[in-house]
Amino acid sequence: MLRWFEENGRESDVVISSRVRLARNIRDYNFSLKLTDDDARKMVNDLTAEIGKLEAVKDYSSYDFARLDDYQKMAMKECHVISDFLLGQKVAAGFVSKEEDVSIMLNEEDHIRIQAYASGMNMEKAFELADKTDDAIEQAVSYAYDEKYGYLTTCPSNVGTGMRASYMLHLPALSSNNRISGLAAEVGRFGLVMRGVYGDSSRSYGDIYQLSNQITLGISEKEIIDNLSHIANQIISQERALRRQYVINRKLSALDAVYRSYGVLRYARKMSLKDAMLLLSQVRLGLAQGLVMTDSETEFCVYQLMIGIQTANLALMNENELSEEELEEYRAKFIRDNLPVIR
Amino acid sequence: MLRWFEENGRESDVVISSRVRLARNIRDYNFSLKLTDDDARKMVNDLTAEIGKLEAVKDYSSYDFARLDDYQKMAMKECHVISDFLLGQKVAAGFVSKEEDVSIMLNEEDHIRIQAYASGMNMEKAFELADKTDDAIEQAVSYAYDEKYGYLTTCPSNVGTGMRASYMLHLPALSSNNRISGLAAEVGRFGLVMRGVYGDSSRSYGDIYQLSNQITLGISEKEIIDNLSHIANQIISQERALRRQYVINRKLSALDAVYRSYGVLRYARKMSLKDAMLLLSQVRLGLAQGLVMTDSETEFCVYQLMIGIQTANLALMNENELSEEELEEYRAKFIRDNLPVIR
Repeated sequence: MLRWFEENGRESDVVISSRVRLARNIRDYNFSLKLTDDDARKMVNDLTAEIGKLEAVKDYSSYDFARLDDYQKMAMKECHVISDFLLGQKVAAGFVSKEEDVSIMLNEEDHIRIQAYASGMNMEKAFELADKTDDAIEQAVSYAYDEKYGYLTTCPSNVGTGMRASYMLHLPALSSNNRISGLAAEVGRFGLVMRGVYGDSSRSYGDIYQLSNQITLGISEKEIIDNLSHIANQIISQERALRRQYVINRKLSALDAVYRSYGVLRYARKMSLKDAMLLLSQVRLGLAQGLVMTDSETEFCVYQLMIGIQTANLALMNENELSEEELEEYRAKFIRDNLPVIR
Repeated sequence: MLRWFEENGRESDVVISSRVRLARNIRDYNFSLKLTDDDARKMVNDLTAEIGKLEAVKDYSSYDFARLDDYQKMAMKECHVISDFLLGQKVAAGFVSKEEDVSIMLNEEDHIRIQAYASGMNMEKAFELADKTDDAIEQAVSYAYDEKYGYLTTCPSNVGTGMRASYMLHLPALSSNNRISGLAAEVGRFGLVMRGVYGDSSRSYGDIYQLSNQITLGISEKEIIDNLSHIANQIISQERALRRQYVINRKLSALDAVYRSYGVLRYARKMSLKDAMLLLSQVRLGLAQGLVMTDSETEFCVYQLMIGIQTANLALMNENELSEEELEEYRAKFIRDNLPVIR
């Protein structure tokens, strides 16, 4: 079975993935931020043991930060298996499903964070996976739950459903038309937040953005998803309209940009992450709009390559410590080796 | 037999070609600038008839501007078969050898301009070709020659031998190290002039420069060539030293620049002349330094491609008038079709 980032799902011209994250805490411990290292260790051990017994996670692999080096942890983050927050924790552990679509993080901002991914626009599947995992864990541990407020969480913004749903969107046309900051302001009015996944705030490397809900309280899971999906669909429409305009009005320029990007990716001998993301974004756009095609029999997922070229993933493939130039050299080689022929 | 720009000669890593041009006038007419159109027509007809009878030019093709359109004339200029000056003339004609290495222009700045090219650094051959043609023409016409001043010419700067010798040099390393303007000033002290062949004065497109003598009086043909070649050899040494430095100290960057240039040339769908010349210059450098190799069995001459992508050459290959965008599209296609595979 393919991992979520190895396949393209529904509306995959714009939507890379759908993600649901549930924040949960257990009754017997202080919130993670208030735990001493010793207590955190104890809690993580307890939870690892309890959850590890569950039928639902019997095929999952487990990890503990105590046995991972920095590159391994960072590579997990780059593959979206663990969060930024978890990466910063001293004591942490967790479980990951075989397909890497479900991740259970222990001692994140909350004691337990359940995260589920689905390819393309498929929040139902992501929610179902997260919900099933949540139900299973609830059999083993006692969640901190309040009848009035719902799930209790470290940060008040997560109280209630404890759920954050998000779509990862590829928005090259909106980006190049400088529409992102306006759009980010607009979605705020609907209780949503949009931010770049990679790079700096000026323009996300690779034009990859995450659209999430901010409100979790006084609203059901279904309402969160419906609201988010409604806005996502509007953004998808805008992105598609701009792409069509570009492809129709400036066909040759569009084709040229895709092929030049491909040519550089195909032949470069060193490459910065920023350059690579920019060029891959162009190729993804070209494939999505049917400007170019791969000659590989299996569907090619550009986002998989975007994950593969992140720093720690590259470093892990090589035994030795890499200098900045070596890293760029390996990145270019990784791209040459993994980019299918495009026509 | 190959045309001079289809092959690489001696020192071809830096020297593209050697050229000798002889300025000659005949006794019976005013200098070209002083001729009425009718007299120019009469002179051109006379000379065409007289020279056309010569055994030496029996395999040459002849042309007359009266039967050429602007694109045809411009394409001849782009192939270095005729000069800029001739292109501006209303009445003009001439002869071109089969291999396009010898050209006889009629009603240029002087009545007759003889021009001979040789691939790479081979001024002896260029001079021999020009000299032989000069001797042949002298049998048919009566040159304006003065015992004291030598050959009389329209512009005093050509009086004497009437000879200008020049090397066409590929100087990417000196260019990228901003050494060209300093060098141009320096060679002036030796009675030479160096200027970009293509593009604007700031940096020659493709890093192609022409080094010529300015002094033609009180100095023999051999002295002109020796002086020019002496300076050319010094420039070649400097260019090579900088290239070695670059390739040794920054091998990966050098390789990357060549391959990226190749990748864009291989895949672009439209291309400006400036971009194409810049990228081809990188590929020429890469081939010359052995950083990359073509897999074609015959030797690949980048300069030939540089000529092929000039505007009129592209326009001539297509029946219809080309818009600027179509021109860029055809240029990219011409490059894709004619650039050998590089490894």
